Amino acid sequence: MSGTALTELFRGIDLTGVLANAVLGGVMAREERFDPIGFAALASLSGLGGGIIRDTLLQHGTPVALTDYAYVLTALCGAAVAYVVRVRGRLWDIGFPVLDALALGCWAATGASKTLGAGLGWLPAVLLGTITAVGGGALRDVVLRRVPTIFGDNTLYATPAVLTAAVMTWFFYGGHPSLGLVVATLLGAGLTLLARWQRWSLPHAKDPRAK
Amino acid sequence: MSGTALTELFRGIDLTGVLANAVLGGVMAREERFDPIGFAALASLSGLGGGIIRDTLLQHGTPVALTDYAYVLTALCGAAVAYVVRVRGRLWDIGFPVLDALALGCWAATGASKTLGAGLGWLPAVLLGTITAVGGGALRDVVLRRVPTIFGDNTLYATPAVLTAAVMTWFFYGGHPSLGLVVATLLGAGLTLLARWQRWSLPHAKDPRAK
Amino acid sequence: MSGTALTELFRGIDLTGVLANAVLGGVMAREERFDPIGFAALASLSGLGGGIIRDTLLQHGTPVALTDYAYVLTALCGAAVAYVVRVRGRLWDIGFPVLDALALGCWAATGASKTLGAGLGWLPAVLLGTITAVGGGALRDVVLRRVPTIFGDNTLYATPAVLTAAVMTWFFYGGHPSLGLVVATLLGAGLTLLARWQRWSLPHAKDPRAK
Repeated sequence: MSGTALTELFRGIDLTGVLANAVLGGVMAREERFDPIGFAALASLSGLGGGIIRDTLLQHGTPVALTDYAYVLTALCGAAVAYVVRVRGRLWDIGFPVLDALALGCWAATGASKTLGAGLGWLPAVLLGTITAVGGGALRDVVLRRVPTIFGDNTLYATPAVLTAAVMTWFFYGGHPSLGLVVATLLGAGLTLLARWQRWSLPHAKDPRAK
Repeated sequence: MSGTALTELFRGIDLTGVLANAVLGGVMAREERFDPIGFAALASLSGLGGGIIRDTLLQHGTPVALTDYAYVLTALCGAAVAYVVRVRGRLWDIGFPVLDALALGCWAATGASKTLGAGLGWLPAVLLGTITAVGGGALRDVVLRRVPTIFGDNTLYATPAVLTAAVMTWFFYGGHPSLGLVVATLLGAGLTLLARWQRWSLPHAKDPRAK
Repeated sequence: MSGTALTELFRGIDLTGVLANAVLGGVMAREERFDPIGFAALASLSGLGGGIIRDTLLQHGTPVALTDYAYVLTALCGAAVAYVVRVRGRLWDIGFPVLDALALGCWAATGASKTLGAGLGWLPAVLLGTITAVGGGALRDVVLRRVPTIFGDNTLYATPAVLTAAVMTWFFYGGHPSLGLVVATLLGAGLTLLARWQRWSLPHAKDPRAK
């Protein structure tokens, strides 16, 4: 597979993830009875927030999500779908987790890759890869006054993102960035789905006020 | 009207908007029984937050709100007014919506204008223009654990900002940026006031759990 | 004392502050019954958030907290301590306020110093110094859906940070930046502890709805 084809493939996965998460943001906007502006805002936070946080922290120019029109238009498209259609049913229940898991892997891998490409080391790469993958959802939750689900009320989600970013970084230092993108993404997506299916989660801390 | 006079006029409108929104932030700080630090923080978020988010996303240098002393001092002035005086009564009830509508138009137009001036295209211009106008209030609402009113519980507010930024962008591409500033600002302010008076709002989504 | 030794000393105080605040973030994560990801996130927000906000606003490159590995590793270390040990008891009750007060002084002084070093003036220096000192805790509170305690429900905390940053700025303009770091830090730490001990707080605004 050539480099260009791989780039195109990842752009496709990336935008599919933006769409799926934007629709999820729109579904939450419906629960809150928002108007179209609220749908657009939540869809954008969900779908684009992680990448925007990453690019803002990296400080290597205006976030891609603002300069590449496909991102904003895809996010708004997801908002429109969620506003017009009452998204639910079997297709969504099965399809969303798969698309979301692929997006998580893709975002963690590309986030780490971009950080390494900007000349930073392995630790920021793992951190910013993880933030790319889970930051948008966390931002959306905070705006909705919910404690981010990635902090505990969830099957493994941030953990596969950390692993994905770490694997991507390992392949990058090994001189195989393209192969790393593919392997890390599939690993992250697979682990996320497996955890969801098997209800794996990290052990919660005990409340200090409990006996 | 010369370019310099226009710049001065818009700076005046801009700072008036900062003052009005800073006072509003202070009024909310009083409702929450904050101390002076809380007044200063809420006033600054309300009055300066939108521009700071815009400049942080644009990544073209330290936000103007930090480098141009007039902004911070105006915001702190608004906080002080709200702390000392119990702002309310007819003058505030009539005056605030007018100043706020003017600020919304001014911020959306100047936000779009600055984005275009930084070399970005029409889509980021409309987005960042809108964020400049409504971002500060949304940030303030999130910090106060309120769902941002721009997401639904309001007469048209973000919508006029979108239109203002779009009109500004249209004039900019047509080669009349100064005229665009004036027209777009007045249009945005007028539409915001009209919507408030006529109680226009966007249709809310229905709750999916409702029958 | 040589410049290098002073730099090392402040790095030590800085990292001690990161550790203490990261542990505090972890203690709050336990109250919320988070999983390890939540511990790591809250600890990082608490310990590193202020500096990250400062560096993002300054726009002088990727935040130090991401590029200097010691910061992230210290924050994660604090998270791990809070996850494994139920941090409480006399040692914590006495030790934490002292370390936290030292960190507040150190962060306000170094934040102002870094802003001045980037060529900005006294007003942004005081602002960003203060944000460095209190921004991380405020960010953590917002994510936990709590109104930031610095806005009112506290003994003097942001106020000493403002004073520390102002004193640092004054020494900087007077040509004694190193001496300023030491004096401002000690002043801020001392005032914070004194306020805590004497229960000094700023006067709260009265609720406008009260008689």
